[in-house]
Amino acid sequence: MARSRIAILGTGLIGTSLGLALMSRKERDYEVVGADRDRAHAREAKKMGAIDRDVGSLQEALEEAALVILAVPVMGARKILEEAGQYLQPGAIVTDTCSTKSDILRWAAEFLPESVHFVGGHPMAGREKSGPGAASVELFRDAMWAIVPSPRADERAVSVILGLVESVGAYPLYIDAQEHDTYAAAVSHLPILLSVALFRMVRDSQGWEDAGLLAGPAFRDLTRLASGDPAMSRDIMATNREAILHWLDRYQQELTTMRKALELGGQPVADLFSSTQFDRDSFIENPPIRRRPEGVEAPSAQDTLGRLFVGGLYDKLKDVTSRAGSSGTPMRDDELRRKLGVPEDRDGER
Amino acid sequence: MARSRIAILGTGLIGTSLGLALMSRKERDYEVVGADRDRAHAREAKKMGAIDRDVGSLQEALEEAALVILAVPVMGARKILEEAGQYLQPGAIVTDTCSTKSDILRWAAEFLPESVHFVGGHPMAGREKSGPGAASVELFRDAMWAIVPSPRADERAVSVILGLVESVGAYPLYIDAQEHDTYAAAVSHLPILLSVALFRMVRDSQGWEDAGLLAGPAFRDLTRLASGDPAMSRDIMATNREAILHWLDRYQQELTTMRKALELGGQPVADLFSSTQFDRDSFIENPPIRRRPEGVEAPSAQDTLGRLFVGGLYDKLKDVTSRAGSSGTPMRDDELRRKLGVPEDRDGER
Repeated sequence: MARSRIAILGTGLIGTSLGLALMSRKERDYEVVGADRDRAHAREAKKMGAIDRDVGSLQEALEEAALVILAVPVMGARKILEEAGQYLQPGAIVTDTCSTKSDILRWAAEFLPESVHFVGGHPMAGREKSGPGAASVELFRDAMWAIVPSPRADERAVSVILGLVESVGAYPLYIDAQEHDTYAAAVSHLPILLSVALFRMVRDSQGWEDAGLLAGPAFRDLTRLASGDPAMSRDIMATNREAILHWLDRYQQELTTMRKALELGGQPVADLFSSTQFDRDSFIENPPIRRRPEGVEAPSAQDTLGRLFVGGLYDKLKDVTSRAGSSGTPMRDDELRRKLGVPEDRDGER
Repeated sequence: MARSRIAILGTGLIGTSLGLALMSRKERDYEVVGADRDRAHAREAKKMGAIDRDVGSLQEALEEAALVILAVPVMGARKILEEAGQYLQPGAIVTDTCSTKSDILRWAAEFLPESVHFVGGHPMAGREKSGPGAASVELFRDAMWAIVPSPRADERAVSVILGLVESVGAYPLYIDAQEHDTYAAAVSHLPILLSVALFRMVRDSQGWEDAGLLAGPAFRDLTRLASGDPAMSRDIMATNREAILHWLDRYQQELTTMRKALELGGQPVADLFSSTQFDRDSFIENPPIRRRPEGVEAPSAQDTLGRLFVGGLYDKLKDVTSRAGSSGTPMRDDELRRKLGVPEDRDGER
């Protein structure tokens, strides 16, 4: 029997890093093919050892793929979903790595055949670099990876994605699409705007020649996200605009409050800096993690990726009897977790 | 003859890093003493090999010191300047590393005796870490170091500070105090506020438990400065408030413009991200530097630190005939440079 196929669509920073991780597993019994609108990116990914073969068309990538990973900006993912149905085999698993989740879950439901299992994903990793050249097998190490299964995805599909996430050293985080987009707007998407605004303000100012001479690590750190992939940023703004504008307004309010405090001066200003240093240091030292229900083990990557094409229930999962409600009503993530018996996070590793 | 003495007041991140660099020079003919209000910091600096001796009083630190480095937050520096005159020997050189320059130049003129030479300084280095434990001899490598000589500082004093800056691998940048504070407000001080505001907004929100789970590299990068030394931040706000509020207002305008663009959507948004990525990448690859006048060599650290206590004109300097106008009118930095024949930057190293 021919090796099973994993297809990576989009061999930029994320896709190539995933490819590197998948290709590095000992005794892998799958083939990794890659495709990118920019053939040079696909060739580079192959040269780096991130994929076995680079293919030139959607059809070649999708046919016979048991697992498809969409690693393109979200509007690009939409286009692929619109066309993919005709090529995907029944039972294929499709996941993505896009920065917003509500729209893509909707598009997956709208365009993919019922026999295809879509599990939304979003690795909270990567900074300002883009392109295959910046890829690393360590990119996802210790990163959170949001998981948003579609209502039609079965337990096997979800556990395969869990295995993928675990195999790259990341931590799965079950979350609702709406929730994800709301919070990502605050902690990932708004920061892009703040970086861009700071860089533009200084760069476009009359004193740039001199300000630029003084610009050191503080300025570089705060404007880092302004060097991110413009297509990704553009698509984020298009697919999460409401939440982002909401947080932008709240941020403007925070700045206005801060301005008042500075005008008044004195102890409140000192307290603001002391308390914020304390809170942030606490966050860095002890980031929030979801605690695992007692006694439930994490599925191992070996088990899940090994079983990628075997089918059948993932036997370590508890209490799985039927598929999510066929009415199509999205199952709440805690219900799904209970049904799957899947733990929320690695025991004791953080 | 006893070894000459360099005194470092404040053995936090900056002071200890400077000490490490000074203590590591081969064939050094000076002693390095250190003092800190927090005796534990001074002891730690000594243990790390950043100072020869730690002393417990201002008097012990300053008497017989040929070079004094103030590495404390700016309000702390003020207190030291108020008391220092009674202990400093005539001809002593005093410099600082504070984040703002206008006030400290004023206080130096007000409190120090005429026979003491004050040269203001500000290394554009260091991020969110503080304390001696985070110190490194490499902290200043390739960093810009703003130099603001007071009107009464002579050529020897300025060249000693140039030698200090060069010995730690930094690049001297002559600048006017006002100019420094105006631009530092945009590229260093406002960023602190932006970090604090973002962290506070998210941390104080109802959804923190969940938002915190999703917070990845983007959030950490943008809030990094919120972990900085609160005393330093507080003193920056107190001594550069006008310029900071000015840039805060401009930043709010930039955000308002950006909001409009997002509401309209489309190509202008895409252009904003593309053009900003391009401009920032260009800045990172080719940061602005001042070009050196043809044929003028940089003073070497060996020459200047070696001559620290020898006195006399620094003989590689051209065209130095008299001291800066004794009327006390601040000399413009290009005039001073011309008089000293001092180049603006290292030739060809950037």
